[in-house]
Amino acid sequence: MISRFDKIAVDLPRPKNPSPNDAAAVQELLGGRFGEMSTLMNYTFQSFNFRGRNKLRPFYDLIANIAAEEYSHIETLSYAINLMLTGTTKRGKDPSATPLANATDARNTYHFIASGQTALPIDSMGKPWSGDNVFSSGNLKLDLLHNFFLECGARANKMRVYEMVSEPTARAAVGYLLVRGGVHIVAYAKALENLTGVDLKPMFPIPDLDNRKFPEAKKLEDEGLHRIMYTWSPNDYKELDKIWKGTHPMDGSELIVDAGQPEGFDPPDLDEEVQLNAPGVEPEMLAEIAKRLFG
Amino acid sequence: MISRFDKIAVDLPRPKNPSPNDAAAVQELLGGRFGEMSTLMNYTFQSFNFRGRNKLRPFYDLIANIAAEEYSHIETLSYAINLMLTGTTKRGKDPSATPLANATDARNTYHFIASGQTALPIDSMGKPWSGDNVFSSGNLKLDLLHNFFLECGARANKMRVYEMVSEPTARAAVGYLLVRGGVHIVAYAKALENLTGVDLKPMFPIPDLDNRKFPEAKKLEDEGLHRIMYTWSPNDYKELDKIWKGTHPMDGSELIVDAGQPEGFDPPDLDEEVQLNAPGVEPEMLAEIAKRLFG
Amino acid sequence: MISRFDKIAVDLPRPKNPSPNDAAAVQELLGGRFGEMSTLMNYTFQSFNFRGRNKLRPFYDLIANIAAEEYSHIETLSYAINLMLTGTTKRGKDPSATPLANATDARNTYHFIASGQTALPIDSMGKPWSGDNVFSSGNLKLDLLHNFFLECGARANKMRVYEMVSEPTARAAVGYLLVRGGVHIVAYAKALENLTGVDLKPMFPIPDLDNRKFPEAKKLEDEGLHRIMYTWSPNDYKELDKIWKGTHPMDGSELIVDAGQPEGFDPPDLDEEVQLNAPGVEPEMLAEIAKRLFG
Amino acid sequence: MISRFDKIAVDLPRPKNPSPNDAAAVQELLGGRFGEMSTLMNYTFQSFNFRGRNKLRPFYDLIANIAAEEYSHIETLSYAINLMLTGTTKRGKDPSATPLANATDARNTYHFIASGQTALPIDSMGKPWSGDNVFSSGNLKLDLLHNFFLECGARANKMRVYEMVSEPTARAAVGYLLVRGGVHIVAYAKALENLTGVDLKPMFPIPDLDNRKFPEAKKLEDEGLHRIMYTWSPNDYKELDKIWKGTHPMDGSELIVDAGQPEGFDPPDLDEEVQLNAPGVEPEMLAEIAKRLFG
Amino acid sequence: MISRFDKIAVDLPRPKNPSPNDAAAVQELLGGRFGEMSTLMNYTFQSFNFRGRNKLRPFYDLIANIAAEEYSHIETLSYAINLMLTGTTKRGKDPSATPLANATDARNTYHFIASGQTALPIDSMGKPWSGDNVFSSGNLKLDLLHNFFLECGARANKMRVYEMVSEPTARAAVGYLLVRGGVHIVAYAKALENLTGVDLKPMFPIPDLDNRKFPEAKKLEDEGLHRIMYTWSPNDYKELDKIWKGTHPMDGSELIVDAGQPEGFDPPDLDEEVQLNAPGVEPEMLAEIAKRLFG
Amino acid sequence: MISRFDKIAVDLPRPKNPSPNDAAAVQELLGGRFGEMSTLMNYTFQSFNFRGRNKLRPFYDLIANIAAEEYSHIETLSYAINLMLTGTTKRGKDPSATPLANATDARNTYHFIASGQTALPIDSMGKPWSGDNVFSSGNLKLDLLHNFFLECGARANKMRVYEMVSEPTARAAVGYLLVRGGVHIVAYAKALENLTGVDLKPMFPIPDLDNRKFPEAKKLEDEGLHRIMYTWSPNDYKELDKIWKGTHPMDGSELIVDAGQPEGFDPPDLDEEVQLNAPGVEPEMLAEIAKRLFG
Repeated sequence: MISRFDKIAVDLPRPKNPSPNDAAAVQELLGGRFGEMSTLMNYTFQSFNFRGRNKLRPFYDLIANIAAEEYSHIETLSYAINLMLTGTTKRGKDPSATPLANATDARNTYHFIASGQTALPIDSMGKPWSGDNVFSSGNLKLDLLHNFFLECGARANKMRVYEMVSEPTARAAVGYLLVRGGVHIVAYAKALENLTGVDLKPMFPIPDLDNRKFPEAKKLEDEGLHRIMYTWSPNDYKELDKIWKGTHPMDGSELIVDAGQPEGFDPPDLDEEVQLNAPGVEPEMLAEIAKRLFG
Repeated sequence: MISRFDKIAVDLPRPKNPSPNDAAAVQELLGGRFGEMSTLMNYTFQSFNFRGRNKLRPFYDLIANIAAEEYSHIETLSYAINLMLTGTTKRGKDPSATPLANATDARNTYHFIASGQTALPIDSMGKPWSGDNVFSSGNLKLDLLHNFFLECGARANKMRVYEMVSEPTARAAVGYLLVRGGVHIVAYAKALENLTGVDLKPMFPIPDLDNRKFPEAKKLEDEGLHRIMYTWSPNDYKELDKIWKGTHPMDGSELIVDAGQPEGFDPPDLDEEVQLNAPGVEPEMLAEIAKRLFG
Repeated sequence: MISRFDKIAVDLPRPKNPSPNDAAAVQELLGGRFGEMSTLMNYTFQSFNFRGRNKLRPFYDLIANIAAEEYSHIETLSYAINLMLTGTTKRGKDPSATPLANATDARNTYHFIASGQTALPIDSMGKPWSGDNVFSSGNLKLDLLHNFFLECGARANKMRVYEMVSEPTARAAVGYLLVRGGVHIVAYAKALENLTGVDLKPMFPIPDLDNRKFPEAKKLEDEGLHRIMYTWSPNDYKELDKIWKGTHPMDGSELIVDAGQPEGFDPPDLDEEVQLNAPGVEPEMLAEIAKRLFG
Repeated sequence: MISRFDKIAVDLPRPKNPSPNDAAAVQELLGGRFGEMSTLMNYTFQSFNFRGRNKLRPFYDLIANIAAEEYSHIETLSYAINLMLTGTTKRGKDPSATPLANATDARNTYHFIASGQTALPIDSMGKPWSGDNVFSSGNLKLDLLHNFFLECGARANKMRVYEMVSEPTARAAVGYLLVRGGVHIVAYAKALENLTGVDLKPMFPIPDLDNRKFPEAKKLEDEGLHRIMYTWSPNDYKELDKIWKGTHPMDGSELIVDAGQPEGFDPPDLDEEVQLNAPGVEPEMLAEIAKRLFG
Repeated sequence: MISRFDKIAVDLPRPKNPSPNDAAAVQELLGGRFGEMSTLMNYTFQSFNFRGRNKLRPFYDLIANIAAEEYSHIETLSYAINLMLTGTTKRGKDPSATPLANATDARNTYHFIASGQTALPIDSMGKPWSGDNVFSSGNLKLDLLHNFFLECGARANKMRVYEMVSEPTARAAVGYLLVRGGVHIVAYAKALENLTGVDLKPMFPIPDLDNRKFPEAKKLEDEGLHRIMYTWSPNDYKELDKIWKGTHPMDGSELIVDAGQPEGFDPPDLDEEVQLNAPGVEPEMLAEIAKRLFG
Repeated sequence: MISRFDKIAVDLPRPKNPSPNDAAAVQELLGGRFGEMSTLMNYTFQSFNFRGRNKLRPFYDLIANIAAEEYSHIETLSYAINLMLTGTTKRGKDPSATPLANATDARNTYHFIASGQTALPIDSMGKPWSGDNVFSSGNLKLDLLHNFFLECGARANKMRVYEMVSEPTARAAVGYLLVRGGVHIVAYAKALENLTGVDLKPMFPIPDLDNRKFPEAKKLEDEGLHRIMYTWSPNDYKELDKIWKGTHPMDGSELIVDAGQPEGFDPPDLDEEVQLNAPGVEPEMLAEIAKRLFG
């Protein structure tokens, strides 16, 4: 079971020149094969499906705990996309004014037809996220190897989307995810090392570009965010410190477990888009609604 | 952000005669178009995407809060499926003994090849869950109507899967979901009533069979579980009591908000399946692993 | 535009030993790549999309007219499937009696969960029909060649499904479709002959087994049904007689155009399946409904 | 069975500045999840699959009859798309002149490669229509609720596509569909009212913008087109007047049943696109073809 | 089994003004329904699946041999796409410089996120190639008819993509494929003629535009490349000369079998794209790698 | 380019009790996400897409060469499936005898409707192979890590399918693939070691069961087949010996490069299935066909 808080992981700056195609690109990191929907659902199902848990508790705790963190990643990306789509069409209530004219040339029309200029579980080409993206073989070594590869693939995608989009909203989100995804890469490498004795350090980083080349990521690493594993639970997943220990393979800093979770930031309140009827509640209706709700 | 607890919502009895095809049927409720993956992801994305939140806080709180509960539903169904698949093949380490012989005739071979006899985000025919199942138009009235329909469609599926599978593990899970899904149906009806003034009571129940005809559900309704809306958060989503109030459309009982969440039960520890190498950690490896972990 | 009649093309006998898996096999002919959904939608879109229509009217009339006939084919197959699924589970209103127990082992669980033991636009493996099955290149010669191939592929599938299912309901439907599909094969061969001068007769039949080897088809061919092209319209598509003329490539009989359409048969009234809540209208509700409808 | 007429429902003006991306947007209304392919196929299958028909004839008649109308909607949209794509590339027979150069940047390349600049059963992103879009549970109340939701979702999409495309061809088609889709929304609301007693009027309209804000729709409503239910059959579906009666929820006007169908308009004759070989019949071939056809 | 050579079939000129959208269009010919992945896999599976091979050896040899040639076609198109994508973004190692900025507006973002500006088994809209594209009924006449249609459909697509893209790299590849695909059309027509006696010559060409209208194809046909069937094997597939004989249906030239395969050209060495980390091997790493490889 | 030989890699014994469901299970290894279609196409595209080839020749040679071997693996599995489906229905030419009756209950109806009881590019649930299964990031380290993971995932699937099917035809094929796939796992581990210095030996084997536990694999390893890398080319891919050198991580034996390829075995001649019209050439037609072919 989970408990939910109305906080997001990153304090997202408002975009400067929001462009639908920038938002469409960021969708890859949310709903693509290597997007955060995939990391979230892979680790969630692997945690539910873990056989022999009591014998191998630290591994279970690690996977279950990272699954919990991934939820905040789909949340962060969704808000980034939402902000980047807000105000990208002409506001107004007259449909004849063709307020969505520029959406016709946008790469992703779903953002304007299926959603209210908001995020969807799709990739940068509009392909829906699929349950096929979940790998859960039940073999611990293979699942960990998969997770290590998945996170490296996700890292490559983050790097490339960063290079596509200069919008500060996107870069703040991606920079954060590079750091936290980096934590997960190290975690799965440590897990494989504990399980088999292999030393994966010589492979770091994959691809061969340091997070510190990304200013938003560097800032967070300077604050040590790449060294911290939160437990994302008040009481559970406490044996992950058996795996998350020792030094970081990139800078040799000491790895730290932080019980609970980061404080987070208030999520942005998204402006209405009246031309999309989103949310579509007219001012004149509000009094009556308020009476029913609060009266 | 979320916090995760190592508790599940239902105390699942161990199955009596576990059958792969029973487990395959239950997958519809997890990964089908009307399964809990769909309810979870619909409400999750609608909560991220909510425009004009501050103006319409009780509606946002309701959707965000139900999204949080749905997580426990995919968890419950996954554990039910896992238990129903445990031990359904011949245990042993000699591959030549054809330990998975009976899987050849099972309806869902993915359970034995892609997973370690565990749950996957697929439906009863093995089709993967798809992001296409998420509806998030941004128009509040339309999204609530969708959610009301989605929950009714989900209810019909639950009723039919219940009728397919007599296994007590499945019936305990489905009975619980009938009750809690029923809470969500009422919640979205109340939300529509508050938003528009419509009275949907005459339509209850959809389909036309009372939850109380299902013994496992009746027991829980006798305990009042159909009247309670948890907030699934220590501090947030507190304005849902503006919507979740008054009486239940089926029995006229009073609706109650319960801050936080139910206590829950320890998740089952799933037995190993050595013929599947799940988890595939041999006893002779354990000492060395323990040394690395704890040494 | 169309006009619809409450008649079906074939007088379908009730099944003798209805089996869910037989019905699942027949789905291939309805919703498979070479099923009647495909022929219907291919010719429908080709007729809408026809460029240079006035110059090539007989070809347009032929395609538009066959499209109209295909509607009766999806209707026929749907009713055949519906009859074959009726009564295949245990009737009754107590869900605890596991009335759908045998559906668990059925190849197609969608028939019992997504539908009320009725037809769906899916194939024999449950894969949904896809718009990808529509070919509409705009090049008349290529579209006609496609249609000729499509009908031959459809014929092969009909022959094989006939060989899988001995149920008289299915055989009556498939026998009819073999004859009428045979008309379409000849029609597209004649169209190609008129367009290019090619003589496709030496290729007949594809595959190499005469319709007359199928008793239900032979009976209809003895009545001459393989020689008749209906116009499926009171006033339009009258120039198809410029193409549908001369002799039949298989038996040399004369080809005939019949203005309008066959008389048809009353569709079967499908029994209720109370355990599926299909239609789910309880006797005690009927009086009130009647009052609203007729009062 | 159906009868087909060479008439379309709307007199479509020729486009002024045809743009491939405008046509690509309109595809959402034809082949999208909430497009007319979906309404057509949902009601068609629900009519074939109706259990207990004789007991509930007015409901069956209503669904079967609306299914018949939907055919004219896929026809109308297809012609609108076809007109909007006609002449959008450079005409000519020399392939080296790169006549399709501007198609390279078009959002939907299928219009130029797979089709002859014509309509396809795909959505605005090129995703093919899927049989998954058909809901046919067999439970009448649930199916009607689905249909009510489906039509409201379709209405939202129509409104948004209208706002994207100022082209008069598209607006004429969409304005017409807003009115006729509005008839269907009322029809399913009335059906639910007759079945259960629920009064859905307070929810109208969904989303909250009157059809009369769309000039092309307003003109048709001024003529009363939103009050008429055609039977789309000379002799059948006559009991729908038991449901389609009383007043319109938006303007209180009286609802009228009109036996048969509207007269309609001649479909446009689409120009050839020689660079696409559509239809690809060279003038020098015509004499020979004519001799075979008419000689 | 196969043997592989480091040669490609066409000497591809470097592109002049490489454009991502041109490359995206060419993908249709590689991974589309009628692309070379489809011809390769159709004939490959038909050759594996051939029943009664010894009785019908020339047909088997023909299909198996054409399958072998198709491999060189996916290779040619992949290299053409790769060349057309090389250098289309800003080279450099600083991610903050937004080196992939122009990819945001490209039609196919997968080329920049999933691949290193290289080819993928997808079509012009990014849809992945699917095994559904393989037709292998086992009925020889039907499979040959399919192949004849498939090649004609492929020819139409090639003609249209040629008309979209003026880039010499693409035109060299497509011109070559028009000629060799033309060989396959003739081959399947001859096979059908040998099997059934049908004469398909009157249908040539489909669509109705001679290869000789395409300068790059004309040049190759002037050299006689349209008359040659290679065996693509040193020792096998030698009975195809029983089918590939007589004259070419377009120009009456004599058909020739050439044992073995064409000499081919060295494949281009693709430049690195450092901003994509492709291949991502830094100069400073090379010495160490060389030591491990060659030391 | 390739050259093709009429030889297969394994001398496949005829099955003893061929069962359609056994064949359906083996399809996972051919067309599943981790099947040989995936390994073939991943390495094929990676070889076409390799950037900086001349600088990193041994890595290119290794990938290109393994791609060539994979072709023989799809061939082997296709023949195994074909043999296992041969004779599984009732032979005969009278369709009324319901010769395919037992196919109705088979898990994979495509084998009997879409194919002539032969292999298709689909998985064990009938899902078509998809181009989405190809990973080709262009980053060499990441692509090699992917390949290492892919082969380990493929190994797990092979082990499980082996445990499902006792049929000697299947076991001979799977045993062979376990050995050769094992070669590829070692190869990608060695490539990663050469590229980065990492030592992956401690992870072997994944999953944790030695190939030698599989009798058919043990026999081949006793012959040394796990130590040999063929070049699959007379002249190219010769620098792979820079990577394929040293000792085998499982048994310490010396790794050997063998120029060219194994000799192989004659492919089985598959019996006709007359009830499926496969190949559908009647004896009485043969004389005429022979006259056309050889006359």
